[in-house]
Amino acid sequence: MSIPSIVVHGGSGEIPASIRKTDVKMKYLDAMKSALDEGYGMLKNGASALEGVMMAVQILEDCELFNAGKGSVFTVKGEHEMDAAVMDGKNLEAGAVAGVQGIKNPVRLAGDIMEHSPYVFLAGREAEEYARRREFEFMPASYFHTEFRANQWKKTRGSGEMQLDHSSDDDDQQGTVGSVAVDEKGNLAVATSTGGMTNKAWGRIGDSPLIGAGTYANNKTCAVSCTGHGEYFIRGVIAYDVSCRMEYGEASLEEAAEKAINDRLKNLGGEGGLIAVDARGNIAMPFNSEGMYRGMKNEHRTFTQIL
Amino acid sequence: MSIPSIVVHGGSGEIPASIRKTDVKMKYLDAMKSALDEGYGMLKNGASALEGVMMAVQILEDCELFNAGKGSVFTVKGEHEMDAAVMDGKNLEAGAVAGVQGIKNPVRLAGDIMEHSPYVFLAGREAEEYARRREFEFMPASYFHTEFRANQWKKTRGSGEMQLDHSSDDDDQQGTVGSVAVDEKGNLAVATSTGGMTNKAWGRIGDSPLIGAGTYANNKTCAVSCTGHGEYFIRGVIAYDVSCRMEYGEASLEEAAEKAINDRLKNLGGEGGLIAVDARGNIAMPFNSEGMYRGMKNEHRTFTQIL
Repeated sequence: MSIPSIVVHGGSGEIPASIRKTDVKMKYLDAMKSALDEGYGMLKNGASALEGVMMAVQILEDCELFNAGKGSVFTVKGEHEMDAAVMDGKNLEAGAVAGVQGIKNPVRLAGDIMEHSPYVFLAGREAEEYARRREFEFMPASYFHTEFRANQWKKTRGSGEMQLDHSSDDDDQQGTVGSVAVDEKGNLAVATSTGGMTNKAWGRIGDSPLIGAGTYANNKTCAVSCTGHGEYFIRGVIAYDVSCRMEYGEASLEEAAEKAINDRLKNLGGEGGLIAVDARGNIAMPFNSEGMYRGMKNEHRTFTQIL
Repeated sequence: MSIPSIVVHGGSGEIPASIRKTDVKMKYLDAMKSALDEGYGMLKNGASALEGVMMAVQILEDCELFNAGKGSVFTVKGEHEMDAAVMDGKNLEAGAVAGVQGIKNPVRLAGDIMEHSPYVFLAGREAEEYARRREFEFMPASYFHTEFRANQWKKTRGSGEMQLDHSSDDDDQQGTVGSVAVDEKGNLAVATSTGGMTNKAWGRIGDSPLIGAGTYANNKTCAVSCTGHGEYFIRGVIAYDVSCRMEYGEASLEEAAEKAINDRLKNLGGEGGLIAVDARGNIAMPFNSEGMYRGMKNEHRTFTQIL
């Protein structure tokens, strides 16, 4: 028997002055708390870690404050292309999807691919065909249109640059979302979901849907969800790096997570963070950016923080 | 100074009786030998490991015997969707592309994404837009149409199943291609390219273009290119697993490669193999399938084999 714990993140980067204001900050903390409460409640009632993390991420996808699902950023073409992945630490099964439009909850589509397709990873218009066949809910473009993301896009658009989560002094930059959990049977799971980078082009896929880069879970070691500048997490294979430091280097969860971010990622020049949990309920939340929207809940405490 | 070495693979799986015939077998061995000779010649003339592996893979893409570039298998829609990745072990830079049609040499597109885009991984129709902007050569569908792939597809099509590299007793099943090399400066590099699975659907992406799954290189440890049932290589993060066993577990290249295939991949139920090289020119080519099309060349010897 393990003690159930759940952790969430809502992106990482520079934290604009406006978000440091108490009332705005509370909106973000409350949103993460809702996700933690719901996920934790399920774990307490015997749900699996996988069910818990998928519910927590679904709640964050439905919240327009975060860059996933409803709050997704705009691509260079003014569209919303979303990526997500899930992994079950019990059997190392995984599902992932990239570059899909119109799907209300990409994390559920990733879960469905894991359970009901012979594949792990589907992408683009054809992944949407799969979703249609599986009777997924599609939302019109208006559902994904939020004023602050549109403004963010208009500002970036002319400049030709891509904005990362929280990479500018703009109130409205929020990040990728993710959750890791351990259930009472000691099973670990992870889910990650994102709208990617503002103004991204050419069908860019980041680290979130890539097993081993932004998302990884294994009961023997840990469950990990990353957030930050995706290209560096891909090149560093950061999520699996945490697991390998534990499995082959006998590091603790905390040491492994710390080194993956402040040694490996940093040496590559990358910025971001991760959340991680092991089967004993140990939790790590290292980041090398200014802040990371993060929170955790177990029977002893509930914690949410940005800086 | 290191002694230049180059290794190639042309897929793994069951080896049909017809391919065991001397004359047919020689066609495959000769094709791999051409790739090795050309790549090795470049390395001897001072080219980088990256240049060497890209040339070797380009030659295998242009050869219709292998499932990459010209010999790519058919998707469920009767099209050819190709994936490729490259990684430079010197600086951990990487480029990858998935689900592109019409590109003569996907490996060159992956290299261009690494060098000229701010991203690591592009996919689908938008990745083709990138290729057009970068003035890549596109070939008509007829270039990719080979009789034996068409027959293979027609057979699989009705059955609703997906065929893997060499997974049936069909003469004409050939696999993913890849190359790893070390150059005289001790730099490592990898390139992998594939047409995926016959009859694949829904924009399926396999392990080949995923950094850490099918493709990985790091001067500190090794360069690795995988071939086999991609879904298992993704879930096992096999290429980076080899590197981590060396970096954190202090395994030799041979032990690390052997365990990644015959321990980790096998425990997941997966079949396939990999080629790997380290900075001292050690080479490993483990597989747990019946055969793997493979070869290596250094100043001491040239070797090609299937079973």
